[in-house]
Amino acid sequence: MNKEKINIIKVGGKIVEEQETLEKFLDNFASIKGYKILVHGGGRSATQIAGKLGIESKMVDGRRITDGNMLRVVTMVYGGLVNKNIVAGLQARKVNALGLTGADCNVLRAHKRPVKEIDWGYVGDVESVDGEILYKLIKTGIVPIMAPLTHDGEGHLLNTNADTIAAETAKGIARYFDVTLTYCFEHPGVMHNPEDASSIIPLINSDIHKKLLANGTISGGMIPKIENAFEALHNGVSKVIITKEDAIDGTQGTHIVI
Amino acid sequence: MNKEKINIIKVGGKIVEEQETLEKFLDNFASIKGYKILVHGGGRSATQIAGKLGIESKMVDGRRITDGNMLRVVTMVYGGLVNKNIVAGLQARKVNALGLTGADCNVLRAHKRPVKEIDWGYVGDVESVDGEILYKLIKTGIVPIMAPLTHDGEGHLLNTNADTIAAETAKGIARYFDVTLTYCFEHPGVMHNPEDASSIIPLINSDIHKKLLANGTISGGMIPKIENAFEALHNGVSKVIITKEDAIDGTQGTHIVI
Repeated sequence: MNKEKINIIKVGGKIVEEQETLEKFLDNFASIKGYKILVHGGGRSATQIAGKLGIESKMVDGRRITDGNMLRVVTMVYGGLVNKNIVAGLQARKVNALGLTGADCNVLRAHKRPVKEIDWGYVGDVESVDGEILYKLIKTGIVPIMAPLTHDGEGHLLNTNADTIAAETAKGIARYFDVTLTYCFEHPGVMHNPEDASSIIPLINSDIHKKLLANGTISGGMIPKIENAFEALHNGVSKVIITKEDAIDGTQGTHIVI
Repeated sequence: MNKEKINIIKVGGKIVEEQETLEKFLDNFASIKGYKILVHGGGRSATQIAGKLGIESKMVDGRRITDGNMLRVVTMVYGGLVNKNIVAGLQARKVNALGLTGADCNVLRAHKRPVKEIDWGYVGDVESVDGEILYKLIKTGIVPIMAPLTHDGEGHLLNTNADTIAAETAKGIARYFDVTLTYCFEHPGVMHNPEDASSIIPLINSDIHKKLLANGTISGGMIPKIENAFEALHNGVSKVIITKEDAIDGTQGTHIVI
């Protein structure tokens, strides 16, 4: 049976936290046809509001350490402020948005990350995705808007990276849909020369991936990003796109396939 | 056709904002059989967090004036902090909770209250309830947890009193369900003598209502409460119960019917 297509778009906090970039992004997101899901970040607002509340943001490798006070802040900011502004903005654009954390409908169950070298605090590693409830919601015309929060099924919310939420959700619904997962990114895609927008690499498959790794085109933070993309592809996701937030119509950016 | 029963429970911020009373309340709520909806407040947390952010809470007759900064606070606190903690707590009790503001699935559309003697700011008066989407969600086994926020359909969230959300939701789904609307209250019900718990009035109908108004038993803030109850009853709601938050099994408190 041919599965129906769905687009999962992941957008970082930077875009959705400022009214002007948010409005433009929501216009673009609203214009995507067919089934879709939005996964958003919100780290800058969390840092800003934590600061005003006298709570220090501690980051390791760009990831947030989440103690009890910080968990309250990210619950407010990701689940409330950022998520509900997106939902209201999309409703104004006739998109029947529904804001979700992983606790809502038990969509994303996680466990608290075990303490090793670093105690990340209330950070969740995803255990399971309820693809079936997402499928049912989406088939009634609902567009899920997912905040980067999960829960442990024992009453605790957990902070979970938005890229991870997007990838896990994509894998979790791949049984029900033909999934394209799009990561919005500060560049138009993966480029031979980051200074030259025309050097974008339109397609990466396993063979090209090996060559780009060998010649150093894919390096630094791009290495795990592309690895995660292949991991999603090996778990049922049809295509991963890395593109700029104003180019999410599925035709632009770097397309990654197996 | 006999409609299926549903219970809508409205609980104030006081109960759901403190971990101990919240846990006990969620135990009680989880034990209610059949279809149900929870509507919650959160004003104390909003006041507390606004204070920490240097935002003054302005109240008139116990109602909050909501300027732009305060709207951000209530969006965070009602839609995020309070709502998602309830959702996670209910998921731990095997209740398939889904947190909703009025913007989510366009459940509660409102308009900004016109400025008369008082400029209430971003406060919404409910215009319409999408009973059909609530019905669909509930029939898939979902238990809606409603935060006291609505939206205007033009991208703006609005602050709306939780009692009003509960009454409007009750009326909005009365086409689909046989609705009992329960208001949690600081007393066990409407009482002849507020100092004497045994003086509770078990049933108020239109005739008894007239007598209790005439002899002054119903006075002060209880007058509009009971009037709102009758208004809901005249709009399809089957029964309104006023009771204490630890007595929400539908057998206790004061039952109001036409």
